Amino acid sequence: MTAGLRVVPVPGLPEVRPGDDLAGMVAAACEAAIGLRDGDVVVVTQKVVSKAEGRLVDIDPEIGHRPIVEAESVRILRRRGDLIIAETEHGFVCANAGVDLSNVEAGQAALLPEDPDRSARRIRDALTHRFGVEVAVIVSDTFGRPWRRGVTDVAIGVAGLRPVIDLRGTADAFGRELQVTEVAVADELAAAAELVMGKSTGIAVAVLRGVDPAWLGDGSVVDDLVRRPDEDLFR
Amino acid sequence: MTAGLRVVPVPGLPEVRPGDDLAGMVAAACEAAIGLRDGDVVVVTQKVVSKAEGRLVDIDPEIGHRPIVEAESVRILRRRGDLIIAETEHGFVCANAGVDLSNVEAGQAALLPEDPDRSARRIRDALTHRFGVEVAVIVSDTFGRPWRRGVTDVAIGVAGLRPVIDLRGTADAFGRELQVTEVAVADELAAAAELVMGKSTGIAVAVLRGVDPAWLGDGSVVDDLVRRPDEDLFR
Repeated sequence: MTAGLRVVPVPGLPEVRPGDDLAGMVAAACEAAIGLRDGDVVVVTQKVVSKAEGRLVDIDPEIGHRPIVEAESVRILRRRGDLIIAETEHGFVCANAGVDLSNVEAGQAALLPEDPDRSARRIRDALTHRFGVEVAVIVSDTFGRPWRRGVTDVAIGVAGLRPVIDLRGTADAFGRELQVTEVAVADELAAAAELVMGKSTGIAVAVLRGVDPAWLGDGSVVDDLVRRPDEDLFR
Repeated sequence: MTAGLRVVPVPGLPEVRPGDDLAGMVAAACEAAIGLRDGDVVVVTQKVVSKAEGRLVDIDPEIGHRPIVEAESVRILRRRGDLIIAETEHGFVCANAGVDLSNVEAGQAALLPEDPDRSARRIRDALTHRFGVEVAVIVSDTFGRPWRRGVTDVAIGVAGLRPVIDLRGTADAFGRELQVTEVAVADELAAAAELVMGKSTGIAVAVLRGVDPAWLGDGSVVDDLVRRPDEDLFR
């Protein structure tokens, strides 16, 4: 039987609070669930990263979360009713500029990490130090998209992973150069992880084992995966 | 160790030609690679579906593929250089209206299946008949997206699967109603499958095992996953 890829949920992460050693908590939970090996990809949801980094703000009950969303936005692309589609300082385009009201205490909102690539690096460094293995780390978040209903998880930060794999110059099965040249594997890995995490189960970590080793290496979501405004037809 | 999800590549599909019994070929390849069990999700790429269904057209070398793209479009959203972002009759918004020049013979282009949900149903019926198991089938294709670089695989047809899972009314870990309400699991499954198929390996089939059984059921990409233009802020 072909080995393929395994996507393993990691339960057992305690409730995360500002200042907690998230990397240590992730390490302990991974150790209990599956252990870690060279080449594993560990996906951690933005929510617990934001909590550990203290990216929580109180919502003024008089005015709601709207001013928080506007403060997190560098550009507002669309508004409809309560929904704002905005670009963040990182260059992400998403609903409410990534400000999140689910899975936080009532009266609070979670902001995106200031630098999600750095958040991923911190977790990766701790995992490498603790286990002596070379793993990749993805910080994932849940974004909507135009034209298609429903949300999917995407990568907002990576460490030890090239988020976009460039196939330019690769031949297809007919020897013709491939038309599709760049595959956003970090987003596909985040999406695969979401399939075992769910939104209401409280599982915030998953491990992917069996990933193509060619994808491991240096990378950054902000530098490699965010489309620059001048390349973008929809901004 | 938690079971999680397995994503298994299915090699061994012969080169597909118009009129071929694709379902039979997929069945034989799955049987050799992993066998099939109740609840498995079989992902088949659009390319082989289009070939089996004879959705190949010759490109006039004088004028190129542009007229084919325009014929496949019901609305053109953006043009830049050679790139056209267009809406197809199915309601998909994608580059070149889904007209594909990779992995087909030189001088030919592959069009999208006329009704990819029907294509998925045909494959599913054949697999059920042959193996006596209840599986789901996804026909996947590779789409770009605004704001983010690189492509990811998405579902363009499903059978036996609810492509969007509605979590409205579900409570989060704090008992607060979830903000994110609809998860496009069909797209996440297609993305996970792409991770083991690659673009140049010629692998056109993958099996996902361990999918949440609650996601199985009746569904349609066109009805459930395509965002209607009147709901869409970017069309």
